[in-house]
Amino acid sequence: MPYPETTDAFAVTDIKKWSEFTRKELPLKPFEDDDVDVAIDACGVCASDVHTITGGWGEDIPLPLCVGHEVIGKAIKVGKNVKNIKVGDRVGVGAQIGADLTCGNCKADQENYCPNQIDTYGAKYPDGTITQGGYSSHMRAHQYFTFKIPDGLDTNLAAPMLCAGLTTYSPLKRLGTGPGKKVAVLGLGGLGHFGVLWSNALGAETYVLSHSASKKDDALKLGAKEFILTNEENWAEKWKFSFDIILNCADATHKFKLADYFSTLKVNGTFHNVGFPDKPIPELMVQDFAPTGCFFGASHIGNRPEMEEMLELAAKQNIKSWVDTIDISEKGCKEAVERVYNNDNVRFRFTLTGFDKVFGKRA
Amino acid sequence: MPYPETTDAFAVTDIKKWSEFTRKELPLKPFEDDDVDVAIDACGVCASDVHTITGGWGEDIPLPLCVGHEVIGKAIKVGKNVKNIKVGDRVGVGAQIGADLTCGNCKADQENYCPNQIDTYGAKYPDGTITQGGYSSHMRAHQYFTFKIPDGLDTNLAAPMLCAGLTTYSPLKRLGTGPGKKVAVLGLGGLGHFGVLWSNALGAETYVLSHSASKKDDALKLGAKEFILTNEENWAEKWKFSFDIILNCADATHKFKLADYFSTLKVNGTFHNVGFPDKPIPELMVQDFAPTGCFFGASHIGNRPEMEEMLELAAKQNIKSWVDTIDISEKGCKEAVERVYNNDNVRFRFTLTGFDKVFGKRA
Repeated sequence: MPYPETTDAFAVTDIKKWSEFTRKELPLKPFEDDDVDVAIDACGVCASDVHTITGGWGEDIPLPLCVGHEVIGKAIKVGKNVKNIKVGDRVGVGAQIGADLTCGNCKADQENYCPNQIDTYGAKYPDGTITQGGYSSHMRAHQYFTFKIPDGLDTNLAAPMLCAGLTTYSPLKRLGTGPGKKVAVLGLGGLGHFGVLWSNALGAETYVLSHSASKKDDALKLGAKEFILTNEENWAEKWKFSFDIILNCADATHKFKLADYFSTLKVNGTFHNVGFPDKPIPELMVQDFAPTGCFFGASHIGNRPEMEEMLELAAKQNIKSWVDTIDISEKGCKEAVERVYNNDNVRFRFTLTGFDKVFGKRA
Repeated sequence: MPYPETTDAFAVTDIKKWSEFTRKELPLKPFEDDDVDVAIDACGVCASDVHTITGGWGEDIPLPLCVGHEVIGKAIKVGKNVKNIKVGDRVGVGAQIGADLTCGNCKADQENYCPNQIDTYGAKYPDGTITQGGYSSHMRAHQYFTFKIPDGLDTNLAAPMLCAGLTTYSPLKRLGTGPGKKVAVLGLGGLGHFGVLWSNALGAETYVLSHSASKKDDALKLGAKEFILTNEENWAEKWKFSFDIILNCADATHKFKLADYFSTLKVNGTFHNVGFPDKPIPELMVQDFAPTGCFFGASHIGNRPEMEEMLELAAKQNIKSWVDTIDISEKGCKEAVERVYNNDNVRFRFTLTGFDKVFGKRA
């Protein structure tokens, strides 16, 4: 019972063996008039995939589970309501695959905060089908969550934009990143490198904060104006009241002395989090916010207009994410998630590729 | 050595006996060309006074200390640089009495975030003089931190506006409170009652959140559209995605399940703190911010333009704070701070009054 009933997936079957992938046919939701079927050509490997399969975000995950939510492929079937996508188009799917599209949030282009949102993998459709991600041959997605990829963007480089890209672009945009603003990106990994790329592209002066001196060259190559090492005593002294925004892309927030970071914000600046670590944030007093009157926040991916805007911006400015490719297979998936978990020379994103070799031409 | 060398003050001399006030002459800073001397007629009793003298914000306070930073009185002497105040004017002094007035923050009307700001009491002038507050006969203040009180405002009702009023007005204004916005004021005490008054005055739809059903009548009388009791199971369910701003005026934030409050914010709404409790905020995950993409922040009083705007608004709209008066004396000060500490029927602010009876006419 292969496609169109199922997808041919590399799935995790046991969170204790979270890097062992097994090839399995997993059911797709019934095809509806708003759906687009995608033959996948590339899928980014997101830290979310690793947080999920290791149980870091909670051990109650539906198994077997195929992760992956940075998907690009070809539309091979479109429902009769689908307006802007036709068979043969190159399309992407990100971390969200459903929402009610009728609530107040959805109507206000805040579908990423819809109370009935559906994650691209590990969530449940109203009919009970578990959503399965992009480490697989096919994906079936509602047209609202399927995006045409502009010409000029390389498939493998664009795939990680679908989650990591949008997750950083959306808050930077909403917080007013642009000419005259100073943005500090904290943590230079998959998310952080996009933070630097977008902040620069939007015209802000961009800084990188990192506790790892080895990131300096990359930070500057990516376009940071300056690299600031945060493991030196009193590093923050020099940067008091400097940044409009700190975009925290780090996973080790629980180890940070947040008051130091807050002190580097301009008055009423924002310390904004886009990574969701497994551990709580450090203990804070309300008083810690008082010296700068700053804000601490977080966001959840981004909305459709922001996704489209980001992809257009990337195409127009020829923005290239830093990607290493790994061919999809049991072994390839294992290597990718283990290296992300161990932070083993990931600069700064893996894209699984070579789908035709494993799954054949599917158009 | 009475005024002009000293002020005749009710001072705390031991934080272990924090409600025992002793009448003492305390030195004033040397008079300079920008200074205004004020013969005090009224001083509000702020929770900050109690946090300070009990050592709740730290036990290292200079003793003897005279607190009080919601001062109104008459200008009795003005330095030659003083522009907008003349002898005989009714003027107020709030919680800040100094700043360098030359730094980037000061130049940007953010003097309340000046790194060299000087608190109205318990702080040190560059010459070493300890600042002393308004439970006393006189105050000497730089003109920048001295405000003309508009005609039409009652002295005893206006005094608490100088700190509690500004502390709530400033963030409400900066966060965009106005027509079409929904503001929830959390905690109905001295700060909270101003939160309701300003939010209404600025045209927002105002709600009160409280765990105490006994506050309902007052909330509605102050102008709240609705009173929401937060000690009922699932109270937040009904209010998901409702408020643009929660203005947290409560002191018991460490007991709150913040995720519930966050869930009642609109997408990208703000949970804003104006009280500075003695205890840390409850443990939070970055994930707690994700369902609404909300922000958590705090602010420190407000700036001069906001103070002037607030006082004008209060005069124009005839806004009356709820104040009980207590005559200043050892006994009166003791009663006031103990009742604030014990939250003993304070609705919603005490103003110390009767200064002429104790200190004589000082003009």
